[in-house]
Amino acid sequence: MVDSVKEPVLMNTPPPYLRLANDKQLPVVMTIAGSDSSGGAGIEADIKTITAHKCYAMTCINALTVQTPQKVYDVFPTPQEVVKQILDANLADMRCDVIKTGMLTVETAQMLSAKLKELGSARPKLVVDPVLVATSGSSLASLGIVDVIKKELAPLADLITPNIQEAFELLGKELPVKSHQDMLQIAMEISQATGCKNVLVKGGHTPWDDETKKYITDVLYMQNDSQYFVYKGNCVSTSNTHGTGCTLASSIASNLAHGYSLKQAIYGGIEYVQNAVGIGCSVAQKHVKQNGPINHVYAIEVPLDRMISDDCFTAYSVLDNIKKPAVDNPIGEDFFSYLINHPTVKPHWESYTKHKFVEEVAKGTIDLKKMQFFLEQDYSYLIDYARIQCIGASKAPSMEDIESALVIVGSVRHEMSEHETRLREVFGVTSDEHFHNIKRGPALRAYSRYFNDVAKHGNWEELILAISPCLMGYGWALKNVQDKITCKEGTVCRNWCDTYLSDKYKGAMDQGVILLNNIGRSYPPDQIDTLVKIYADVCKLETDFWTAALEYSE
Amino acid sequence: MVDSVKEPVLMNTPPPYLRLANDKQLPVVMTIAGSDSSGGAGIEADIKTITAHKCYAMTCINALTVQTPQKVYDVFPTPQEVVKQILDANLADMRCDVIKTGMLTVETAQMLSAKLKELGSARPKLVVDPVLVATSGSSLASLGIVDVIKKELAPLADLITPNIQEAFELLGKELPVKSHQDMLQIAMEISQATGCKNVLVKGGHTPWDDETKKYITDVLYMQNDSQYFVYKGNCVSTSNTHGTGCTLASSIASNLAHGYSLKQAIYGGIEYVQNAVGIGCSVAQKHVKQNGPINHVYAIEVPLDRMISDDCFTAYSVLDNIKKPAVDNPIGEDFFSYLINHPTVKPHWESYTKHKFVEEVAKGTIDLKKMQFFLEQDYSYLIDYARIQCIGASKAPSMEDIESALVIVGSVRHEMSEHETRLREVFGVTSDEHFHNIKRGPALRAYSRYFNDVAKHGNWEELILAISPCLMGYGWALKNVQDKITCKEGTVCRNWCDTYLSDKYKGAMDQGVILLNNIGRSYPPDQIDTLVKIYADVCKLETDFWTAALEYSE
Repeated sequence: MVDSVKEPVLMNTPPPYLRLANDKQLPVVMTIAGSDSSGGAGIEADIKTITAHKCYAMTCINALTVQTPQKVYDVFPTPQEVVKQILDANLADMRCDVIKTGMLTVETAQMLSAKLKELGSARPKLVVDPVLVATSGSSLASLGIVDVIKKELAPLADLITPNIQEAFELLGKELPVKSHQDMLQIAMEISQATGCKNVLVKGGHTPWDDETKKYITDVLYMQNDSQYFVYKGNCVSTSNTHGTGCTLASSIASNLAHGYSLKQAIYGGIEYVQNAVGIGCSVAQKHVKQNGPINHVYAIEVPLDRMISDDCFTAYSVLDNIKKPAVDNPIGEDFFSYLINHPTVKPHWESYTKHKFVEEVAKGTIDLKKMQFFLEQDYSYLIDYARIQCIGASKAPSMEDIESALVIVGSVRHEMSEHETRLREVFGVTSDEHFHNIKRGPALRAYSRYFNDVAKHGNWEELILAISPCLMGYGWALKNVQDKITCKEGTVCRNWCDTYLSDKYKGAMDQGVILLNNIGRSYPPDQIDTLVKIYADVCKLETDFWTAALEYSE
Repeated sequence: MVDSVKEPVLMNTPPPYLRLANDKQLPVVMTIAGSDSSGGAGIEADIKTITAHKCYAMTCINALTVQTPQKVYDVFPTPQEVVKQILDANLADMRCDVIKTGMLTVETAQMLSAKLKELGSARPKLVVDPVLVATSGSSLASLGIVDVIKKELAPLADLITPNIQEAFELLGKELPVKSHQDMLQIAMEISQATGCKNVLVKGGHTPWDDETKKYITDVLYMQNDSQYFVYKGNCVSTSNTHGTGCTLASSIASNLAHGYSLKQAIYGGIEYVQNAVGIGCSVAQKHVKQNGPINHVYAIEVPLDRMISDDCFTAYSVLDNIKKPAVDNPIGEDFFSYLINHPTVKPHWESYTKHKFVEEVAKGTIDLKKMQFFLEQDYSYLIDYARIQCIGASKAPSMEDIESALVIVGSVRHEMSEHETRLREVFGVTSDEHFHNIKRGPALRAYSRYFNDVAKHGNWEELILAISPCLMGYGWALKNVQDKITCKEGTVCRNWCDTYLSDKYKGAMDQGVILLNNIGRSYPPDQIDTLVKIYADVCKLETDFWTAALEYSE
């Protein structure tokens, strides 16, 4: 006896809006390289990258490598005639916007060069990652490849992307690498030696003249424009960088296929690789200690997660058992106290709510230029705050929660108009334009970026946690200096202090505590840590925001 | 002389929120199959699918095929010892949650079976797509593979996913396929013949007993539970289905790796493939007429697009020239008239604003059960409407636009309370619970789904266009019957008519027209078509909404 579900599971048509914006012409990128069976580099990294860039990937596998982050076990070149057939078939039957090459055999490089010459001006763009030395240190490339890349492929390339070691191999000599000027020199020499118009020299860990901190420096030299660009990236403390070279070149190729300019494409590529390295992933066994793969999929959403969180999908009958059972929460009734006393949050909460900026305002000793800077940054911040409240409203569980969120937007508007009045009356701002043209400083931008991120990825509770520190912290910070307020009545400082000590503001804080406690009571205990981290992060952003004002100078 | 940009381009750290939610442990899926160099099927389709599901892909390429949608040009099996080394290295050094197999050589199938037996209970899950016949019709699989899959691999598999032809090959006989009961019979026989506990028989284009329309039917039989599930998918009119089999199995494997149950994983897989087929892509040359690839990346965002639309990224200096120059708009001043007279919109606008439902309400002849159904569906709809207004507010260009959007949320709340009053006073609704438990019908769900989609993917202007037809159409529909209103004063029908004929409502419509016209004046002319399509789509959804009420019966 076999039971069926009562009704068949009816599938949806494709999402209407996606269908509306469908990709009649996906940009196409062909990667020519070796396969890395463990998936972190080579063809596999290329396909992952091209896919993550919403392009269509084709392949020409000119070698199979047996490798993991631990070791290169073996390499098997693909028979030459297979490579030739693949190149011919792909370029005859498929569109191809950009070709990206990685680890090449001499024969493949020669065939590709011949093929591209045959295609003439109709040939796809070409990005050459001259793989001569892998990140793992073991050389996978065959002898003689340096010469073929230099003489046959690079002259046809729109971009070549050597790392420092590869640059030395291409030049046949070593050069000093102590500044970005040194790297520019290397890039220019490579351009000269190969005839390739655009050279990106990658990853010199050069310290900057004026700083002791090291950055990852990439230098792009563009011969035609006699221009160069220096990309200054952050050093990420990880040894998991397997496949970064392949990934960067594929990302650049994908961005070019989308029609971005070279310098834009490279910017996007470096940013993507930095994110993939910084976010990372753990996929190797424990005995594999380093050189692990990067996270190509950091920005991707799991389709089924979306389907089940969207009540417009039809297949509820098969999607039972997905919601986790409610569990009692160990936090107790007072989530707000739990948060500000949590070891992750506490140092940031303290530095935020006992900030010197507020002390100076309370005493009236703050430099008025700093106060003006603060009010302008805060004015601009409040627009972000209103926007994220609106997104919070859109995700709120009930119509009542939607309305509460919108009341807050109303009071943000009120706070903004108070700032406007202060800036006009005290600081002599006269034009409306001024308020639209406030230049956003780094602290505000970092904060705004965080808000954008939470708005995009967070659920309602996470959003509420992100906007709570601003509401709660201002009230607490002023309470902490309440007895020390010596600035004169009627001054902008006093007026500002009074705002956050007012009964109206305290009422809003009381509502805020109730909301936090409601969330604490019902939130899945195993996910509370994320909320805690968000609270800590935002308290730190608030601290930085006041520090920026305190340290402001024209 | 070489010019540099004045300052180096400073890269961002990874987005803070993504970093917060980083994937310490990405689910890992290994695909064992052949490579399809043109990228639409095989290993390539598998990596694309696994990547699009936010999993980590590993490969074991047991054959290189030279193929495009046009033709299979050649097949080269990988040397046996390479396949063995890859399996050993991947399973020794890397984590592996699920293995998915596609086109296998006999030797690979045997090695895999031995390897899995060796691993015992620690072995990964296994999804077997028994590739015996490709969609293109040409058989890529070697002789003898049927037996090995049947006897050695299937017994170890958590799921086997034959299409009808493959099912017949596995059974060694043909059976009738005229109903889903026939397909269940096939699935049960395969389970019996192979010892595989779970069998998904795919894609019988069987008509349903009660309908003439054909659906794509997939049947899952689960022996352990003595259960079966029927998935009823939409027939998409396209011949571009290259790689659907690989993609489905990889999607299911990825969903399993994420921890979803088998029936959930299959639901997600079928939905993903349907979307990828329905949205499609064009990547082949013109002479390739059919069997083109599907769109694996339909739900992915281009990372660089996001970076440039997010003002918190730092690299503005390299991102010049991205914004398109303003162009004069050919629409003229009256975008609203342009829209409702546009050939794409007009038929839907007419059927919407001259709808029989409204005529019957105006005459007071509407069945009150239908009226109650309508009011309840509309009440539930208004919550969606308020939410999307909030998202619109969050994306609005100025603080003033944010405020205007929030005023509308206020009037939506007012309209909801009018509905509440009507439902309580006229239809005897007494409990508050009733309003929270309104069952959403198909027309409302389709509309809601569209809103979700636009909210997720649309810009501010597109959102405004999506919410405009509701505001404008109700007013016009009532204006169209204004002279024929014969329902009695004080009735629910008359009361409802009066709402949309009131001066207050007309005022809101006037504001709506001004907003549309502003958008029409400044919107990039080459993207106006998208706005037109959205307007047409939503007018159709509105028509269906009233039709659902008119056709409602208990």
